[in-house]
Amino acid sequence: MLQSGKKPLQCLQKAINKHISVKLKSDLEYRGKMANVDNYMNVILVDAQEFSKGVLSAQFGKVVIRGNNVLFIKFEDDI
Amino acid sequence: MLQSGKKPLQCLQKAINKHISVKLKSDLEYRGKMANVDNYMNVILVDAQEFSKGVLSAQFGKVVIRGNNVLFIKFEDDI
Amino acid sequence: MLQSGKKPLQCLQKAINKHISVKLKSDLEYRGKMANVDNYMNVILVDAQEFSKGVLSAQFGKVVIRGNNVLFIKFEDDI
Amino acid sequence: MLQSGKKPLQCLQKAINKHISVKLKSDLEYRGKMANVDNYMNVILVDAQEFSKGVLSAQFGKVVIRGNNVLFIKFEDDI
Amino acid sequence: MLQSGKKPLQCLQKAINKHISVKLKSDLEYRGKMANVDNYMNVILVDAQEFSKGVLSAQFGKVVIRGNNVLFIKFEDDI
Amino acid sequence: MLQSGKKPLQCLQKAINKHISVKLKSDLEYRGKMANVDNYMNVILVDAQEFSKGVLSAQFGKVVIRGNNVLFIKFEDDI
Amino acid sequence: MLQSGKKPLQCLQKAINKHISVKLKSDLEYRGKMANVDNYMNVILVDAQEFSKGVLSAQFGKVVIRGNNVLFIKFEDDI
Repeated sequence: MLQSGKKPLQCLQKAINKHISVKLKSDLEYRGKMANVDNYMNVILVDAQEFSKGVLSAQFGKVVIRGNNVLFIKFEDDI
Repeated sequence: MLQSGKKPLQCLQKAINKHISVKLKSDLEYRGKMANVDNYMNVILVDAQEFSKGVLSAQFGKVVIRGNNVLFIKFEDDI
Repeated sequence: MLQSGKKPLQCLQKAINKHISVKLKSDLEYRGKMANVDNYMNVILVDAQEFSKGVLSAQFGKVVIRGNNVLFIKFEDDI
Repeated sequence: MLQSGKKPLQCLQKAINKHISVKLKSDLEYRGKMANVDNYMNVILVDAQEFSKGVLSAQFGKVVIRGNNVLFIKFEDDI
Repeated sequence: MLQSGKKPLQCLQKAINKHISVKLKSDLEYRGKMANVDNYMNVILVDAQEFSKGVLSAQFGKVVIRGNNVLFIKFEDDI
Repeated sequence: MLQSGKKPLQCLQKAINKHISVKLKSDLEYRGKMANVDNYMNVILVDAQEFSKGVLSAQFGKVVIRGNNVLFIKFEDDI
Repeated sequence: MLQSGKKPLQCLQKAINKHISVKLKSDLEYRGKMANVDNYMNVILVDAQEFSKGVLSAQFGKVVIRGNNVLFIKFEDDI
């Protein structure tokens, strides 16, 4: 699972089309398939679910999250 | 619905003239037709409605939202 | 009312000398004639009124609002 | 009073040596003569008074206010 | 343990594949092996544990933390 | 006391070796001799006193204050 | 103790290998030997102690503090 050669932003590129979880600075979390991501960590998420303090609060077909709100991006699939 | 080749900012360009929902860092949400958007995520919204905690709180003929306030942009139409 | 060809910052240029409303990140709102605006969304407002939570709280002959405080700029006139 | 040809930062240059009021993001307000200003909205104020929630709270012979704290600059004199 | 010749960002590069602890501006702390890090302090952490106010609150196979949230990075191993 | 020809950052350079007071965005205030300052408003203060809500809270032989925290710099001496 | 010729960032370079205290925007303070520092005020601290509201709360062999959190850096030794 460890690819020490890849920098963080390259590592995100490798996770395109994988399932991820995006945690924001606020307590919101978004889970879905990452259709794409750029170096600012703007993320396109498809078939996404929003969780507020762990409880499902909304669903999205397709959403673009602005990168500056991101706390971390967690990989749900092995990459 | 998945276009893995498009980066987040290109994806937003493709949603011009579509219905979107803009969620801000505060609990405000704006729904309307996106007349245009730039790479900073400044958005022109027409025939827009403002929702505060889910309740309709204002209506706008035309408004420019400053991009740095954006949490996410959700696509209401298929793009 | 829809000009899909104009980017958000061009759209603001077109609203010079029109009546606008500037909502700030705080709950303050400023209404008046926009004498000018730049790409950072610094705005010159003349004959302006300040509303705090919807209540008129101050009046200004001429004021320059620093762009980074802006949440959105609403057009009161058709442009 | 309207000079639609001047951009916001040029407009501030024109107010040098005039009386202005600087409102900050916090509830503080500073009134005095603006000795100078730069494009970041750093302001030199002379013979200045500080108002906290409308009440006079301090006086200054000369002070430099860092621009990023500025909410707006109001012109007390006609310019 | 002291390498006065290394700048902070070089020092972080030397800690790749070592165990670290990342403290965020909020009270969250993440401990794990740092697979990689860039100059913005974006960090890839593997086999990571999240602690909220000192209590284990989540576990991650692989996570990318966005650098702007970082308060400090502590080295658990000698480097 | 008025030097309308000097820009704010030049004005700060002229105050080197003078007594100043640095007010921060938080309620802290630092008074001392300004040994130096740069264009980001990073300040070296010597023989400094810290005041928290007007009460002396600490003393420093020499301290570097990071400019982004500065609200204003007040000149205690005529410059 | 006064070196009026040195700019703030040069002054920090001169304090490498000296004992310093780093106060953060939050109420945390870190004391230790500064192994290195860069122009963004990222600091490597060794044999460091963390104080929360003046009370010792943690100890670190080696830690990198991200510069944007710094309020001030105080020199414990004469430099």
